[in-house]
Amino acid sequence: MPDNYAEVCRGAKYKFAGHGDRNFGVLLEAFRDADPEMAADYYGVGPAINDFEAQMAALLGKPAAVFMPSGVMAQQIALRIWCDEADIRQVAYHPTCHMEIHEEDAVKQLHRLEPVLLGDAERLFTLDDLKAVVGPTACLLIELPQREIGGQLPAWDDLVAITEYARNQGMRTHLDGARMFETLSYYGKTAAEVGELFDSVYVSFYKGFGSVAGAILAGDDGFVAQAKVWKRRHGGDLISLYPYVVAAKYHMAKHIDEMGRYWQYAQQAAGQFNEIPGVRTVPQVPVCNMFHVYFDAPKADVEDALAQVIAETGVSMAANIRAADTGCMAEISFGDSFGRIPEPVVVAAFEALRSQLK
Amino acid sequence: MPDNYAEVCRGAKYKFAGHGDRNFGVLLEAFRDADPEMAADYYGVGPAINDFEAQMAALLGKPAAVFMPSGVMAQQIALRIWCDEADIRQVAYHPTCHMEIHEEDAVKQLHRLEPVLLGDAERLFTLDDLKAVVGPTACLLIELPQREIGGQLPAWDDLVAITEYARNQGMRTHLDGARMFETLSYYGKTAAEVGELFDSVYVSFYKGFGSVAGAILAGDDGFVAQAKVWKRRHGGDLISLYPYVVAAKYHMAKHIDEMGRYWQYAQQAAGQFNEIPGVRTVPQVPVCNMFHVYFDAPKADVEDALAQVIAETGVSMAANIRAADTGCMAEISFGDSFGRIPEPVVVAAFEALRSQLK
Repeated sequence: MPDNYAEVCRGAKYKFAGHGDRNFGVLLEAFRDADPEMAADYYGVGPAINDFEAQMAALLGKPAAVFMPSGVMAQQIALRIWCDEADIRQVAYHPTCHMEIHEEDAVKQLHRLEPVLLGDAERLFTLDDLKAVVGPTACLLIELPQREIGGQLPAWDDLVAITEYARNQGMRTHLDGARMFETLSYYGKTAAEVGELFDSVYVSFYKGFGSVAGAILAGDDGFVAQAKVWKRRHGGDLISLYPYVVAAKYHMAKHIDEMGRYWQYAQQAAGQFNEIPGVRTVPQVPVCNMFHVYFDAPKADVEDALAQVIAETGVSMAANIRAADTGCMAEISFGDSFGRIPEPVVVAAFEALRSQLK
Repeated sequence: MPDNYAEVCRGAKYKFAGHGDRNFGVLLEAFRDADPEMAADYYGVGPAINDFEAQMAALLGKPAAVFMPSGVMAQQIALRIWCDEADIRQVAYHPTCHMEIHEEDAVKQLHRLEPVLLGDAERLFTLDDLKAVVGPTACLLIELPQREIGGQLPAWDDLVAITEYARNQGMRTHLDGARMFETLSYYGKTAAEVGELFDSVYVSFYKGFGSVAGAILAGDDGFVAQAKVWKRRHGGDLISLYPYVVAAKYHMAKHIDEMGRYWQYAQQAAGQFNEIPGVRTVPQVPVCNMFHVYFDAPKADVEDALAQVIAETGVSMAANIRAADTGCMAEISFGDSFGRIPEPVVVAAFEALRSQLK
């Protein structure tokens, strides 16, 4: 019965989600060994930014890349470039695409693009959903993993078939790869192998990589040259972006080889949630480091139960509980934090939850 | 006869312009005493950003303010809001307005606004230029100082008359105050007194304030609420902006009371430039910390002369020389660097320049 559930979660000793608190230390750790004499990047030019862009381009198997302040900016720009190229306003994406639900309709208000939604919000879209699209479409956007349905992924063969169909229809393919490095263990592919299916690729640095902010947008030379012009138009061509670039490079290096471990954490936790009556995860077996957990009980009751788990064990299992059609749900993305919880404490937390939800 | 004039300037012991090198030290100095446990701002919310926004709103005499990654973003947003409010696409500004010449036509490409240019590019616009505008106009943008003509300023009474006329015509008034704190000594006004003439005010943190990047946009509550929506649309609502916020707060505090001194440096240097035959400044007597200096000789000759000044005295007077209608020119903005040059070295530098240009 906490006054403020979010505050109780913040104060918990252990947390299921993330890498740790988002605080100034995330920046300071990245700059601990930085040379104060190192020249700042200057409007997108200089080794402080261009070396990292080259590193990311190589990693993603693309000729070029441009560092962007945000994914919101990166993805609007990608779609606008492909639409202008084709002189077609229509783009196709999933109903829960970030551009559709989290960006204040920027794709329409700023860029006058016309999205068509593929399939249903509650499931991955299929090749048949794409085939049902009416009218010429400049670009197909695919989000891997599909975050708003618990981080689901299409089977690799389906992904290949969908992107091949799109390209054969003359569509450009864009990857919303905010969390794409989190999917590589499941697919058993390199980032470049995934990137090969797409004309343009966006990756975020503050999801699994745990950095401060920032994103990369990669593609061929002509695409990236245009993206730099649009970055300027959006107000993203800051005189210096090195605070985000240095942090991104540092935290990517720190986490990039740990994504398989974070996926294991998600599988372990999902298995234990699913053993509790009235609780289930989507997907049932996670395919990356995240899932959604659904509770049959109402939000207030679940918050009370989870607060009691914190009181008894020190473990915050899920901080942000949202009402759902029946009961409530939460999204959990796993990182270093879960690994810091002693195994018996994890067990005790699930036992406490089971007992609370009885 | 340097291979690369810019490189020779960078290596100079003393520099006329700026506060010092733009390097990682600018960020690190601002964070020297920062608490690593301080919580990051989260999508525009949290004391790490909101306290500074409140401080800036108070300083500018406005009810509210929002921190923006860039002035490019801040100003497009301001004009778009005023245009949507009036349901009019036309805005009025000087022909050398930043939006007109430095932003890849974003105001048209992203926002479909229709700028009308006031007066001639080579001089300040007047009340008569504004009165000559045909058709309804949503917003008048005034840049103080007018950077591209050497940082000139209208007389205070003219500024009052222009903004009063605009408001009486139903126009909103927006201040491009990228360098507005640099003008307060000349006007003998507070920032709030200048701000009172405008419905919205933008200020940059990396000009006279010498920070890493970032800007503030201030206005009434309704305006700022809308600006936050547009900030999201532009991709500027980063999950965390604290690297720029902390740096802006630190460097503003460091420089805000020194603007009168920087103006004196500009006056002193301009006076000495104007004593050399074939050299003149615009304006002749600076009204803030900047001016443009014009040379009758061609760019290559002037670069050779200035490189020789560096070789003889260690002083870089102007790094970025641009060809002009006759001869060439450079913009110089004064800060702490000029004050670090011993007076006899300044004298020696001007003597060397005079001798080189003979």
